[in-house]
Amino acid sequence: MTSFKRRDFLKWSGLSALPWLAGTTPLTAFAGTTPAKPVSKDSDAVYFINDGIFYKPADFLDKLQAIHAANPIERDAYAADGTMARLLQHFREITGKEAVIYMPTGTLANQLAIHVLGGSGTKAFVQETSHVYRDEGDAAQTLYNKRLVPLAPGRHYFSLEELKTSIAYHEQGEAFAVPGTVVSVETPVRRCDNRVFPVEELKKISDYCRKAGYKLHLDGARLHIAAAFTGIPVAQYAQYFDTVYMCLYKYLGATGGAVLCGDKAVIEPMHHLVKIHGGGIFTNWPGAAMALHHLQDIDTVLQQVKEKAAGLFPMLNNITGLEVQHLESGSNMSLVKVGAGIDTVKLGARLRKAHNIVFGQPREEDGRIILKINATLLRRDNKQIAAAFKDAVGFAKT
Amino acid sequence: MTSFKRRDFLKWSGLSALPWLAGTTPLTAFAGTTPAKPVSKDSDAVYFINDGIFYKPADFLDKLQAIHAANPIERDAYAADGTMARLLQHFREITGKEAVIYMPTGTLANQLAIHVLGGSGTKAFVQETSHVYRDEGDAAQTLYNKRLVPLAPGRHYFSLEELKTSIAYHEQGEAFAVPGTVVSVETPVRRCDNRVFPVEELKKISDYCRKAGYKLHLDGARLHIAAAFTGIPVAQYAQYFDTVYMCLYKYLGATGGAVLCGDKAVIEPMHHLVKIHGGGIFTNWPGAAMALHHLQDIDTVLQQVKEKAAGLFPMLNNITGLEVQHLESGSNMSLVKVGAGIDTVKLGARLRKAHNIVFGQPREEDGRIILKINATLLRRDNKQIAAAFKDAVGFAKT
Amino acid sequence: MTSFKRRDFLKWSGLSALPWLAGTTPLTAFAGTTPAKPVSKDSDAVYFINDGIFYKPADFLDKLQAIHAANPIERDAYAADGTMARLLQHFREITGKEAVIYMPTGTLANQLAIHVLGGSGTKAFVQETSHVYRDEGDAAQTLYNKRLVPLAPGRHYFSLEELKTSIAYHEQGEAFAVPGTVVSVETPVRRCDNRVFPVEELKKISDYCRKAGYKLHLDGARLHIAAAFTGIPVAQYAQYFDTVYMCLYKYLGATGGAVLCGDKAVIEPMHHLVKIHGGGIFTNWPGAAMALHHLQDIDTVLQQVKEKAAGLFPMLNNITGLEVQHLESGSNMSLVKVGAGIDTVKLGARLRKAHNIVFGQPREEDGRIILKINATLLRRDNKQIAAAFKDAVGFAKT
Amino acid sequence: MTSFKRRDFLKWSGLSALPWLAGTTPLTAFAGTTPAKPVSKDSDAVYFINDGIFYKPADFLDKLQAIHAANPIERDAYAADGTMARLLQHFREITGKEAVIYMPTGTLANQLAIHVLGGSGTKAFVQETSHVYRDEGDAAQTLYNKRLVPLAPGRHYFSLEELKTSIAYHEQGEAFAVPGTVVSVETPVRRCDNRVFPVEELKKISDYCRKAGYKLHLDGARLHIAAAFTGIPVAQYAQYFDTVYMCLYKYLGATGGAVLCGDKAVIEPMHHLVKIHGGGIFTNWPGAAMALHHLQDIDTVLQQVKEKAAGLFPMLNNITGLEVQHLESGSNMSLVKVGAGIDTVKLGARLRKAHNIVFGQPREEDGRIILKINATLLRRDNKQIAAAFKDAVGFAKT
Repeated sequence: MTSFKRRDFLKWSGLSALPWLAGTTPLTAFAGTTPAKPVSKDSDAVYFINDGIFYKPADFLDKLQAIHAANPIERDAYAADGTMARLLQHFREITGKEAVIYMPTGTLANQLAIHVLGGSGTKAFVQETSHVYRDEGDAAQTLYNKRLVPLAPGRHYFSLEELKTSIAYHEQGEAFAVPGTVVSVETPVRRCDNRVFPVEELKKISDYCRKAGYKLHLDGARLHIAAAFTGIPVAQYAQYFDTVYMCLYKYLGATGGAVLCGDKAVIEPMHHLVKIHGGGIFTNWPGAAMALHHLQDIDTVLQQVKEKAAGLFPMLNNITGLEVQHLESGSNMSLVKVGAGIDTVKLGARLRKAHNIVFGQPREEDGRIILKINATLLRRDNKQIAAAFKDAVGFAKT
Repeated sequence: MTSFKRRDFLKWSGLSALPWLAGTTPLTAFAGTTPAKPVSKDSDAVYFINDGIFYKPADFLDKLQAIHAANPIERDAYAADGTMARLLQHFREITGKEAVIYMPTGTLANQLAIHVLGGSGTKAFVQETSHVYRDEGDAAQTLYNKRLVPLAPGRHYFSLEELKTSIAYHEQGEAFAVPGTVVSVETPVRRCDNRVFPVEELKKISDYCRKAGYKLHLDGARLHIAAAFTGIPVAQYAQYFDTVYMCLYKYLGATGGAVLCGDKAVIEPMHHLVKIHGGGIFTNWPGAAMALHHLQDIDTVLQQVKEKAAGLFPMLNNITGLEVQHLESGSNMSLVKVGAGIDTVKLGARLRKAHNIVFGQPREEDGRIILKINATLLRRDNKQIAAAFKDAVGFAKT
Repeated sequence: MTSFKRRDFLKWSGLSALPWLAGTTPLTAFAGTTPAKPVSKDSDAVYFINDGIFYKPADFLDKLQAIHAANPIERDAYAADGTMARLLQHFREITGKEAVIYMPTGTLANQLAIHVLGGSGTKAFVQETSHVYRDEGDAAQTLYNKRLVPLAPGRHYFSLEELKTSIAYHEQGEAFAVPGTVVSVETPVRRCDNRVFPVEELKKISDYCRKAGYKLHLDGARLHIAAAFTGIPVAQYAQYFDTVYMCLYKYLGATGGAVLCGDKAVIEPMHHLVKIHGGGIFTNWPGAAMALHHLQDIDTVLQQVKEKAAGLFPMLNNITGLEVQHLESGSNMSLVKVGAGIDTVKLGARLRKAHNIVFGQPREEDGRIILKINATLLRRDNKQIAAAFKDAVGFAKT
Repeated sequence: MTSFKRRDFLKWSGLSALPWLAGTTPLTAFAGTTPAKPVSKDSDAVYFINDGIFYKPADFLDKLQAIHAANPIERDAYAADGTMARLLQHFREITGKEAVIYMPTGTLANQLAIHVLGGSGTKAFVQETSHVYRDEGDAAQTLYNKRLVPLAPGRHYFSLEELKTSIAYHEQGEAFAVPGTVVSVETPVRRCDNRVFPVEELKKISDYCRKAGYKLHLDGARLHIAAAFTGIPVAQYAQYFDTVYMCLYKYLGATGGAVLCGDKAVIEPMHHLVKIHGGGIFTNWPGAAMALHHLQDIDTVLQQVKEKAAGLFPMLNNITGLEVQHLESGSNMSLVKVGAGIDTVKLGARLRKAHNIVFGQPREEDGRIILKINATLLRRDNKQIAAAFKDAVGFAKT
């Protein structure tokens, strides 16, 4: 009777709907055109659709072998030792938290954080646009005995006043008021074009929660991006929160995985919870080694990406038919308005085939193209990139 | 850390904040006034604050003895036989459902209905103002693996369009869409002044749910009231729904208890669920006997109440300083606007002390006094009641 | 697919399989015999099959009216005030615990105690013969996240050594050892002929648990019976345990209900849990008043019952064909061996019809008849009872 | 208060307590001895302590690159496509089941199988020695609403009669009997020296379960081993069961992961359950590619291992001081009795250092050394291995 509709997850990671990404796609539209030189290695490609590098198998293996050659990778048993232990120690240091634990997914990290921090309180206050509210399959209510109360529908943050109003509405207006004891914050917010939660509001919320006895969780799946674009270091973000989840694959190169940092008393019982939820994986060294490698210079890399983009975007804006639009409270994502006479399918295909640049397609709601910047931007000179766009725009004119 | 704030439930049942209801309250304000004749028996009292008769112990025992004398009460073992079985059979008949089960509370009945009807679907769509959403301690999310999606904030009903919009928003916009498979409707709605859910909309919703595979639950805690004031019989309401919960104490005189009616396949597994949730009570004959007695003529009684009120209200409106206001989509509840020069505390106390009439106090939001009609209205002649109000208004003039 | 088999609960309460208890049973076997005088009032009957008085409706109502006349009964709202509050206060006093809460069933009381005491520990150690292990529908594992580890199969108690061995087996031999943090004890044990848990062992277990950090729960559904027959007061039993559940209907006359006593920190969160499990009943005064009435002299009554039985049993043993056998560690239950030439169906029917005495039938496993003593024993003179048995045995000779 | 004791999981995988496995262990006992030739590559080592190959990082990466070169690996998104899809298809074929799903751990696979197959039944019948009963952290009772009823304590299988007796005991003897609806079988049984569940008994149990409406789950973490040593193909095993779990890392080389095969109606809802339990990992191609590679010839490999051991063991038994003992119902594990005059620490160290052979130490309960055979046995000639043992035994004489 119940049909579970598994949605195309790729849609969310930005990889979908780009037909030329599949090698076998016939591109008859380009018959007769010849790229200046053959382009084939993915490790040279510039991706404007992701938040980080998503290695293809060959590149992943090459990279791991280089990592291993430089510093031997050690296997872990159930994420307790080896290279994984070094990765966890690194996260402990950059967040300044007492304890840290590895989990296979961010969903598990978010849910266990809210579950354990929340104790017997029944409510948790979250952004309506957050992953925890809309992209975790109703786990909180189904498995973790929490009612998620959504704040700020459609927006990337809520104010302290909105939080207090909602708390009052629920605590005072219900027959059997069980205080929500957790507030969860996501920044940057994927469903809001990677906009960041204003740090000034965060400070107020953190102060209030400490005083009022509310626990505060950070879904920092892309926290380094927030840090790079706000200038607030990860460590400073972390101190506003009781627990911090960070992702190993969105820009650290692993094939999956998450860490959760917090007080020892909060993290310790999670070892058992991870086990019974089926997250105790035998060994996890490939992801650990890859994430550890990238974690060591991620702040520098993202700073370079940011600066590089600052040089690139004016060059793109000089191309007739392209307009890069910055977002208020934005981070690594901008929107590109493409002029009326340009065929965006041709544009994307030319960039991919002739220049090894992956660029998206107009989104439904406003016809603009998402442009994300990430470490792959550092693979190519700005002039080359701008020239490639210029060529492609010319090619795609209708 | 977590402090559970148990709210004054009486507040919700309308019994609170009437200081003279406690026998020991000194009423120095009335020094020197003498009622025409002593008034003491609660079984003569007219209550304008409840939906039914709430027997005091002496009256309850007298009534049960009379019932027993007329038709011997038989004990049940775990709600399976005796007088309870006759009560359940009666509910089966008036709802036209295959099966019926006794439960100690409406909370259990609502939650188990949504839980069992919903199966592995994670969402249930409910009125934001409903008991199931705001007065059941977040049971759905804490124990019964359901996320309640609130519709129509602050209003007594939602339209089919609103339901469909919400379903689409949740099923299409979430990364892992698990269909909500249950819709729950409450009518009349206590948090909305006992307003009724429009039956035309109900029909449309019921048709849609049948076709779309959604199950439909009715929180009919006060369903006979809805029936009396809309003219739609209980049986007709019942046929729009898969399960119907009805209450044994709100106007049937029991000290507690609920029944849930539905298909055998839905009701049968609930015997085990009631047991493990701790609802399998040894014997339940006092409530069963009382509810069975009142169930037999509740439709007639409420019809009489409605007609009597139709005669009474114009008489009250003739009293300067009183204005009975009808509610759109209302049922047994009206609001009384009391003129500026009248002391409502004095008014209420005079009605209680001199006339054995229980009348409320102005509510916070708009200063109007809730006036509910119920079977106690039949205890007194309209002229007497109107005269009592006239006397009390005169007495309370400032 | 799953069929839930609801078992005849009456079987467990000892009321079943006595065909003459049903008024309409034709007793053609007795044609021609005339009892000396008509016997009809249940309030004169002596029941050898129960642990207490199970009032029939008429008697229940009479009794409550007498109670009300002597000391007015006050209604409670959700078990928070009125006569219920006085009952709870009384339990607080006799157990010496900080806090007490009313629940509709012992199943809820046992389960919530183990759930809350156990926290995030996954195991609870219990008697294999206990109600919590075998008669609560697997609630612990289904709803309350606990694995019940059974001790001492078939026996009425476990020793400290057995407990320690089991703890070691589970904590040391499992891949992911999560300590059980609760031990539950039932005394007397219904499934073991109401035998009592030896108090010397209890003391050792209690000492061990305090030191080892285990919490200890008492299922004292019939604790006053244990107290009467061991001479250990309820208060002394209570001090060995963190929580104590006691029953309101097994010998206190209510139609159902339970109380749970313990520390404030343990009891307080249960108000919310009772609510969400559907146990928050509107008002509960009939049971509260009845239980409070009987609680006041239950120790005296059971002492009298015990002493009276000490006089009666030798008289019964003097009757050829009857042998009352005491049980080691027994309490209010003995077993009667009936001589070969006596028809037990005739025996039971004669006692019922001619003498208003309810006596059981041979049980399957050993052909002996359960004989329980309770407050109804005080209704008749020992000589009369013995004479009745003598008459019935003569009558039933084959 | 609760302290979760995480046990050394390595202990269970047989890797622990072998101090010379750590490269830094000083082996002063061997001062002065020189192995014939340097031994260093792990890919040449013969391991007598595991069920399969556990690749070290360098070997793992080399192997994956070779696999990729031969047949390009394709990434999956959330285990839905790419190389993972080919792996799943392969499992579908070898088990003959309709549907298959990837999960990060066997714990999740076992628990979800029992949970979904069991529906609202509360009990599942399992071996007392099984992983699901003793090594999954009480997940069944804590998260998946199931009471596990243990059969055949300490033994590797239960008979149909034992199953039927237990079912009768629980269904007939409990106040509220909810049928267990699932039976789970593990074969071979790790806690019982990898002994196999007798297939004749399995057939009877399977027949009974089909008729009685019980669902049957197979924990086939090492099913290919059972198949190799009993001669019963995986496909035949699978047809006795409703669901079959198989492991990707115990002998298929992956770093973790599991698959569950069964009917579409059973597997389909698990996609949502995996997601909410936090098992939906971004991409899983390294494990998928490795497991797919080994799955293709695992039956051949294990057959060769079995035959090779049949040649090797008599040669070892010819060495004075060694006795390889076969186990009744055994599979890939034997026990070695070492003569009194041999120092087993020296023996093990010599084998490791001089011959690159990993051999265990005497176990506590009976002083015998576990000897497991696996694919690493094929790396060396039997004569070489026997000679190595002969050398080491001579070296270790005291």
